[in-house]
Amino acid sequence: MAELGKRVFLGRKLRSTQLDETLLPKRIALPVFASDALSSVAYAPDEIFLVLSMGGLSAYAFNWKIGLAVAVVMLTVVASYRQNVRAYPSGGGDYEVAKVNLGPRAGVTVASALMVDYVLTVAVSISSGVQNATAALPWLNGHEALAASALVLLLIAVNLRGLRESGAAFAIPSYLFMFCILGMAVWGFVRYASGDLPAVASGDLELVAEEPYTGAVSALAMTFLVARAFSSGCAALTGVEAISNGVPAFRRPKSRNAATTLALLGVISVTMLMSIVVLADLTNLRFAEDPATQLSRDGVPVGDSYVQDTVIGQLAGAVYDGVPLMFYLTVATTGVILVLAANTAFNGFPVLGSVLARDGHLPRQLDTRGDRLAFSNGIVLLGLAAVVLILAFDAQVTRLIQLYIVGVFVSFTLSQLGMIRHWGRLLRSEPDPAERGRMKRSRAVNMFGLMMTASVLVIVLVTKFLAGAWIAITAMVALYVLMRAIRRHYDLVADELAVDDSDTTLPSRVHAIVLVGRLHKPVMRALAYARVSRPDSLEALTVDLDRDSTARLTEQWDELGIPVPLVVIGSPYRELVRPVIKYVKELRRQSPRDIVMVYVPEYVVGRWYEQILHNQTALRLKSRLLFTPGVLVTSVPYQLRSAKSRGPERVRPVPGEVRQGRTFSDRRDS
Amino acid sequence: MAELGKRVFLGRKLRSTQLDETLLPKRIALPVFASDALSSVAYAPDEIFLVLSMGGLSAYAFNWKIGLAVAVVMLTVVASYRQNVRAYPSGGGDYEVAKVNLGPRAGVTVASALMVDYVLTVAVSISSGVQNATAALPWLNGHEALAASALVLLLIAVNLRGLRESGAAFAIPSYLFMFCILGMAVWGFVRYASGDLPAVASGDLELVAEEPYTGAVSALAMTFLVARAFSSGCAALTGVEAISNGVPAFRRPKSRNAATTLALLGVISVTMLMSIVVLADLTNLRFAEDPATQLSRDGVPVGDSYVQDTVIGQLAGAVYDGVPLMFYLTVATTGVILVLAANTAFNGFPVLGSVLARDGHLPRQLDTRGDRLAFSNGIVLLGLAAVVLILAFDAQVTRLIQLYIVGVFVSFTLSQLGMIRHWGRLLRSEPDPAERGRMKRSRAVNMFGLMMTASVLVIVLVTKFLAGAWIAITAMVALYVLMRAIRRHYDLVADELAVDDSDTTLPSRVHAIVLVGRLHKPVMRALAYARVSRPDSLEALTVDLDRDSTARLTEQWDELGIPVPLVVIGSPYRELVRPVIKYVKELRRQSPRDIVMVYVPEYVVGRWYEQILHNQTALRLKSRLLFTPGVLVTSVPYQLRSAKSRGPERVRPVPGEVRQGRTFSDRRDS
Repeated sequence: MAELGKRVFLGRKLRSTQLDETLLPKRIALPVFASDALSSVAYAPDEIFLVLSMGGLSAYAFNWKIGLAVAVVMLTVVASYRQNVRAYPSGGGDYEVAKVNLGPRAGVTVASALMVDYVLTVAVSISSGVQNATAALPWLNGHEALAASALVLLLIAVNLRGLRESGAAFAIPSYLFMFCILGMAVWGFVRYASGDLPAVASGDLELVAEEPYTGAVSALAMTFLVARAFSSGCAALTGVEAISNGVPAFRRPKSRNAATTLALLGVISVTMLMSIVVLADLTNLRFAEDPATQLSRDGVPVGDSYVQDTVIGQLAGAVYDGVPLMFYLTVATTGVILVLAANTAFNGFPVLGSVLARDGHLPRQLDTRGDRLAFSNGIVLLGLAAVVLILAFDAQVTRLIQLYIVGVFVSFTLSQLGMIRHWGRLLRSEPDPAERGRMKRSRAVNMFGLMMTASVLVIVLVTKFLAGAWIAITAMVALYVLMRAIRRHYDLVADELAVDDSDTTLPSRVHAIVLVGRLHKPVMRALAYARVSRPDSLEALTVDLDRDSTARLTEQWDELGIPVPLVVIGSPYRELVRPVIKYVKELRRQSPRDIVMVYVPEYVVGRWYEQILHNQTALRLKSRLLFTPGVLVTSVPYQLRSAKSRGPERVRPVPGEVRQGRTFSDRRDS
Repeated sequence: MAELGKRVFLGRKLRSTQLDETLLPKRIALPVFASDALSSVAYAPDEIFLVLSMGGLSAYAFNWKIGLAVAVVMLTVVASYRQNVRAYPSGGGDYEVAKVNLGPRAGVTVASALMVDYVLTVAVSISSGVQNATAALPWLNGHEALAASALVLLLIAVNLRGLRESGAAFAIPSYLFMFCILGMAVWGFVRYASGDLPAVASGDLELVAEEPYTGAVSALAMTFLVARAFSSGCAALTGVEAISNGVPAFRRPKSRNAATTLALLGVISVTMLMSIVVLADLTNLRFAEDPATQLSRDGVPVGDSYVQDTVIGQLAGAVYDGVPLMFYLTVATTGVILVLAANTAFNGFPVLGSVLARDGHLPRQLDTRGDRLAFSNGIVLLGLAAVVLILAFDAQVTRLIQLYIVGVFVSFTLSQLGMIRHWGRLLRSEPDPAERGRMKRSRAVNMFGLMMTASVLVIVLVTKFLAGAWIAITAMVALYVLMRAIRRHYDLVADELAVDDSDTTLPSRVHAIVLVGRLHKPVMRALAYARVSRPDSLEALTVDLDRDSTARLTEQWDELGIPVPLVVIGSPYRELVRPVIKYVKELRRQSPRDIVMVYVPEYVVGRWYEQILHNQTALRLKSRLLFTPGVLVTSVPYQLRSAKSRGPERVRPVPGEVRQGRTFSDRRDS
């Protein structure tokens, strides 16, 4: 199933020789890092038209101006990030920039924003993908939330199983997507110029403004509407920061290649966005917030039966009207690229988590590479949060997008601010005038970037706060508080654990106890091992849970002539753990300077469901003994056949390896 | 909340001095063990009338004859179980009787049947309780399934928290219930004799037979209907076997007191059942399967708006027509006794589980007394299964009861068969003629019991298989297969673990390794302890996850002058576990007769959410090392302040203690 999913979403499997190339050339790096940024042209234009539709045709006239504004912001941000990747080639991204230059609080703020945004990337991309798919598969209509949730669950499953991002898996659909969209634009313009471009599905409909914008509309209301449309259009910028996290994965010269790729990404993205907006404008495309009442044909509202396809869906239908194959290919690659964008979050989230864990803001085990468990938790968390959002917002991109870009622009803004500080600091110690000039130019770029992103952040906050952005902000604040608390806890523990002179007294003697339940091989082995370690005193300990079995045990003990005294302690209520703890504590009380070493014989079975049937008491006993000072707990494992037949643990790819410039294929051989 | 639930359901709390009396006198034992059996008179008569209603008034005439038949079966079963408690005073109950006399397969069959029945006891009792409550609280109507599920969840919560059954908590509502029902009967008969008994709510309605029974009804169809009514009425017998599991809780002479209590239970139960049936017959009570169409007033069907109260509800309304207080008291105690009956299952289930675990049919940890975790699993499982049934059958007692009594009668029948074998075996070796005569009489009683219960089982199977009994039977078969498989697994492991001569070679030397991450107090302690245990060789081992921290570690190591060599192993992929395992395996390969002792420094925190932040890697490392032959894993705990401030584990009561004759109050002091 997961395998099937892989084939469907990622195309043909690659032979492992193809995987050996670790570092990515630009032509592969572009699609790997750009799928998120490029895919947003699948929903950003829709949102621009949709918001403007409320103001009727007079607002619609703003569409290409808004597209242009978004393009300017996009190019500014790209220019700024070209500075970032040069200055911070380590792949720490915005979090590192903010942390180093603005302090840990700013860093944690950026991290919270990014984490919320990863969840939204999944929710928005998958919802948009499903919305796109309905253009080709009409029966999906009305079941979008369910289909989107199922897709996210599939992504969880695939990523849990271990899905290695491969360059080609990204390259093929990404380039196909560019080819389809740019091809559609070119072909559309050619057909328009020659006058034979047919109307889009909604081209002959009349658009009616919504309630507050009918009649005389105040300039303020119209400005607010245009600002909202711009805010929504800025969704096209999400994913631009991805490259700054992935510099280590580039071929040398890493920073320069990354900067070039960024520039390429910016140009392609802007071209695609503008082409779609202009083409939609030329074809009189109508995309309304509430199509049933806003759109009418010959004065009659189209009503609830009207299905409003996405902008790309409508354009592809018109431009490729004689070539259904190209229409389906365009719609399908759009869907695939959106799923790839969502999968990007499943790769980025654990990488960010690992960086945060290294700094003590998240549980430290998230930082252990190759620890599938840690990643699994992240993947499940990310996926489920996205499913909750999808269900809560009924997979409606329009509503989800209200929450979306706050996080991105918080991160953009703090990152630019950090870069300005960075250049300022460097300038203070740099004597070379040529170098100083370069730095000043870089700082100017970042300053312009800051101005731009900060303004957009304010616009986004003002236009979207009540519409949903408050939810995203609340989530960010909660994450911020949590991460600060975790860090505080780690700091406290580190203080308490710091080595000082109080620990100099060496314990004097070792008193060994072998716990015995029934007499079997693990016990014999534990006894043998305990004897070899030559403790100062050694005894076997059993709890009298049942008179008959205890009698049988002592009898066998004598028969086998085991040269270790067997101590039987009573337990009137058939408890095991308390009497043992009590006995050990009593030993410690008698000679506080000794160590008590408790040997716990365990047998190891191979399968998890067998594990349930065994050693549960040993496990509980061991964890309770850990709370008793001066006690060491030694597990003496005895491997049963089912444990031995278990092969070595399978090495599986870990999310984010490709983006961090690591290989999975090498690790497999180690 | 749970405390509130306790007060509501179990009445006033008792002072702990009152708890000291462990063994139960008959006057307390009767209510403790009888609530399940007595409570069934709250639904058994309803089911008799309901099934008969399908056949119209001609079938209704059978009602008191069926009551009589159920009473005869009840008294027979009680007489048989008086033999059981005398012969098996250990409290093993039907499972023990079947296992000892008929072999383990029969024992496991009985156990499966009983476990399914516990789930159904909860589902049926709670559903019936809610149905009863609607007579007093009409707003519950239509929300029965939700209310019943909520009640079960409350029972789960209360039992998880640790609810000690106290004798008085059972005595008050049980005696009140007897008082209410028997009082209602006496008062009703007196009023009937004096001619002033008012009609019940449904007394003036006409009853119409349902489809297949209208017109000329074949004798066969009528027989089948009467047999079904009898099967449903036999629900009154559930719970009779409870006393045979609780003999150890009785005062001495245990068996005789238990037998006397059983006789009392039988007489009271039969009296209550017959009183209700006869009173309902006298008052022309109509209780229909489908009241909306079957019941009509002056020829007009009552329709969907008609709410059909339970038989006890209707009778109490009529008999106590001038005294609303008594009406509400009767309905309320009926509800309470039903909840108590359900709670009985929460006590019986873990006890049975513990017995089964001791015999290796269930995971062995279920047998450790005082192990709350084991009980918790059982409680949650039992409760959730009941909730599933309640929701699936919409809390309709009529539908649930189709599944119910198969298990009870499987258990009854196998138990009687076992008893006959028991007496036969004793008779073969008994020379004393007086004793032989007594045994033969006992055997005759059990033979009659077997005949009776086997016939009822056949009738139940025939009349209810398709109506729902197949579900219960499927569940039993599944449990049977599972328990046999678990036993087989334990047997295999025991064979593999049996001590033989192959284990005689003592290992020669101990090679100790202390794992070091950062240099803190736990590591210092582990090093000190490892040195005290004087291994043949000792080294500290660290994995180079990060160049800087490793450099810092080696520097500190030298500064502190630690007299143990520090080995640094590389890990190109920042993994921790694999390099360590690899290193240890290599050591073992070089000198296979040595033991490798790995010391893992751990710090112990007090709160579970702190635990999440620490030692996860240590935990994974330890569990992986257990799979490596010849390796011992020693945890060196370092208790942080938050761990030390944690008081001793709270001792909480464990379900089933009272019924097994154990005390909680004693354990608390130990």
